[in-house]
Amino acid sequence: MQAREQAPEIQPVLDQLRERFGDRFSTAPSVLERHGQDESYHTPMPPDGVVFAESTEEVAEVVRLCAAHRIPVIPFGTGTSLEGHIGALSGGISIDLSQMNRILEVNAEDLDCRVQAGVTRKQLNTHLRDQGLFFPIDPGADASIGGMAATRASGTNAVRYGTMRENVLSLTVVTASGEIIRTAQRARKSSAGYDLTRLFVGSEGTLGVITEVALKLYGIPEATSAAVCQFGDLESAISTVILTIQSGIPMARIELLNDSQMEACIRFSGLEGYEKKPTLFFEFHGSESGVKEQAEAVEAIAGEFVGSAFQWAEKAEDRNKLWEARHNVHYAIKSMRPDCEVMATDICVPISRLAEAILEAEKDLAATGLKAGIVGHVGDGNFHVGYCINPKSKQEVEAAKGHNERMVMRAIAAGGTCTGEHGVGQGKIRYMEAEHGPALAAMKAIKQALDPQNIMNPGKILPA
Amino acid sequence: MQAREQAPEIQPVLDQLRERFGDRFSTAPSVLERHGQDESYHTPMPPDGVVFAESTEEVAEVVRLCAAHRIPVIPFGTGTSLEGHIGALSGGISIDLSQMNRILEVNAEDLDCRVQAGVTRKQLNTHLRDQGLFFPIDPGADASIGGMAATRASGTNAVRYGTMRENVLSLTVVTASGEIIRTAQRARKSSAGYDLTRLFVGSEGTLGVITEVALKLYGIPEATSAAVCQFGDLESAISTVILTIQSGIPMARIELLNDSQMEACIRFSGLEGYEKKPTLFFEFHGSESGVKEQAEAVEAIAGEFVGSAFQWAEKAEDRNKLWEARHNVHYAIKSMRPDCEVMATDICVPISRLAEAILEAEKDLAATGLKAGIVGHVGDGNFHVGYCINPKSKQEVEAAKGHNERMVMRAIAAGGTCTGEHGVGQGKIRYMEAEHGPALAAMKAIKQALDPQNIMNPGKILPA
Repeated sequence: MQAREQAPEIQPVLDQLRERFGDRFSTAPSVLERHGQDESYHTPMPPDGVVFAESTEEVAEVVRLCAAHRIPVIPFGTGTSLEGHIGALSGGISIDLSQMNRILEVNAEDLDCRVQAGVTRKQLNTHLRDQGLFFPIDPGADASIGGMAATRASGTNAVRYGTMRENVLSLTVVTASGEIIRTAQRARKSSAGYDLTRLFVGSEGTLGVITEVALKLYGIPEATSAAVCQFGDLESAISTVILTIQSGIPMARIELLNDSQMEACIRFSGLEGYEKKPTLFFEFHGSESGVKEQAEAVEAIAGEFVGSAFQWAEKAEDRNKLWEARHNVHYAIKSMRPDCEVMATDICVPISRLAEAILEAEKDLAATGLKAGIVGHVGDGNFHVGYCINPKSKQEVEAAKGHNERMVMRAIAAGGTCTGEHGVGQGKIRYMEAEHGPALAAMKAIKQALDPQNIMNPGKILPA
Repeated sequence: MQAREQAPEIQPVLDQLRERFGDRFSTAPSVLERHGQDESYHTPMPPDGVVFAESTEEVAEVVRLCAAHRIPVIPFGTGTSLEGHIGALSGGISIDLSQMNRILEVNAEDLDCRVQAGVTRKQLNTHLRDQGLFFPIDPGADASIGGMAATRASGTNAVRYGTMRENVLSLTVVTASGEIIRTAQRARKSSAGYDLTRLFVGSEGTLGVITEVALKLYGIPEATSAAVCQFGDLESAISTVILTIQSGIPMARIELLNDSQMEACIRFSGLEGYEKKPTLFFEFHGSESGVKEQAEAVEAIAGEFVGSAFQWAEKAEDRNKLWEARHNVHYAIKSMRPDCEVMATDICVPISRLAEAILEAEKDLAATGLKAGIVGHVGDGNFHVGYCINPKSKQEVEAAKGHNERMVMRAIAAGGTCTGEHGVGQGKIRYMEAEHGPALAAMKAIKQALDPQNIMNPGKILPA
């Protein structure tokens, strides 16, 4: 834990919060530590106190108190972010929303719902299953819906269902002055003014605290099937993806694992019958005949690039095993070496530039000698490198950072972005200027307008 | 034309623009008049001068000049807006973008393109056809892509393809200070900072001038078919829509015309073989078998609500006739009476509230004695009333405004919005407080931050 001096003016805030929230306020070192550390390699930066809020009104109360004393406010969901989003860089109060975990309404007729920010995606889907509905956005971790909105999360299903950008209908937000606003009504579309919903989606707590989220839902498809196809080389796998997307086949999931990632997954997740080769995982949603038709079309495309015969996972348990393996890539990489921690990064490029982006990343990896896995939501042009590094080895950390930086700069040069879905947090701030240029001034003006005291999760997204 | 005093400080701006742009600058009364009047009932408010810009740099030059003299800037595309968006309420310079009509790039591999703001949607689709691609957003009018982005337009295809919100990848914008920014890179998704693209989409020229637009494209579907189904009553037609949407059938278009609208269309567009009854127009996109499957599923649903047998429009020319009739509803209403002008309005509600919203609108119409047609993008919960009024009859204008207001307030109470796709302009400003409540303050703060002099299309979207 890094030392940071506690601002002298915080004591009265801590005292008032303790009096107001009793045992739902904590300054216990273990609690502070847990709230200053996400799942990333960034240095833990614990807050000065943590409030476990139970309602939007309580969040507003805390923000108003912090605003009156110019004390930073850092929203906390499940702590599964990957770019140091929750570190209390200037101290302050962490508002833990995990106890705000009520599903407020499910409107099956309208295919929408409204949940408190602390509801996790698995909790929501368990709740929805009996009604034949589901919420498709799946970033891997069982993140909170509020956190997913705040980082504009996506994941494996985004190629078909979109990201949080497309699937949030409206938000309840506590602003930097402690006002409660709702960003939009419940209608599917609107032209009534500025799109505040989309502004807060992806704002990473820097403009306000998201306390409730209204989401689009989908009917569980009549038929679902999944398949695996292995390729002789990465280019063939990626060409299969590109042609599939261009053909307009409505894939639900199309995921790439490179050979080293596949090797780690075979070992870690006990995937039997597969080789250490570039591999695509497919999932098809639709009617019985629609799924069959999609699968045949994709198998034909893969055949053109000498992909293996599809290995089908027809049963739900086989599919679950496949996607569990996919979700566990992080742990599979971790198991590559005993002293390994995973440093994860993500970029996203136009799909026509995907093959060169991944191939250059692989070539550069070979030159650094780092161990790493590459997995991608390739239908979106988005992929991740998971570096297996010893965090105590300065040389390894620097090598990974250097590789990441070169990959990001190539992505930006190719019309892509420094982060497809993980967000900026602390980790990608240094690339914001390169990616956005003069548009960054507009972002800073918005931040200044909505959080003039810079108390909302300061030090994230925008360079000083 | 309403009298308005010319601000004294504008003369030097007019002189400089004339010197700089020669015959691409005009103060001719006919030109001014055309640029102060859209297709709505709002009082024409001509600007003081019109610049026909040919590049983003020229737009930036004009905005910088206006900013230096605090003169309003009003962007102009094709003038097809419906809520008085282009009226120069405080005078100023209209920037006509219609000569910025170049298609800058089409990236077929990435299913995207970049166009200048003055390109119209029909121009784009004509250009794309040979490559097997299309851009689906279709607001009826052959609007400019820049104008469609500025009003967050949608139309008949939105139920499947989304609105401009979902289909703009990035924008080039001239800010209120005359800086040129690009709101995003070309990647399909990104978590790199605030979503400036979505902020400018729907901002109606009040935050900056959109000069270039990057768009998602789609492959022309393998198969397309359209059908018409008529119902004994409105409720049965809407119930068919609701059940179709809930069943997850990926309709490309699902449009409702009420009986009076259908009567007008039969007469105006020579639609033969149809009755004056509540009617649904359907369009299906997909593979041959997919389209067949969708159509059978929808026909079965319609049968449950005693809809007529589907009348199919298999051939492209028959489909075109159908959709031309749909697009010409405006003129069909106009033809209801010789002295008629159409006052169009739109609201959007959660689909579960659609039946009551339309039925109440019809009942209220009957009470006012107004002639009107109702058409709806009902898959989105969005519908329009086109009032056939004599604009010189104060009583008729007031009756239509009163009906509109009651309908809007019912929509807001039902969780809907005062405008699904036409935008706020001048016409819906009065409902912004009712719809957004305290969130309006956040919109105003953003406006103040990005346009501190209030020169960008002043008097639109936000109440004073």
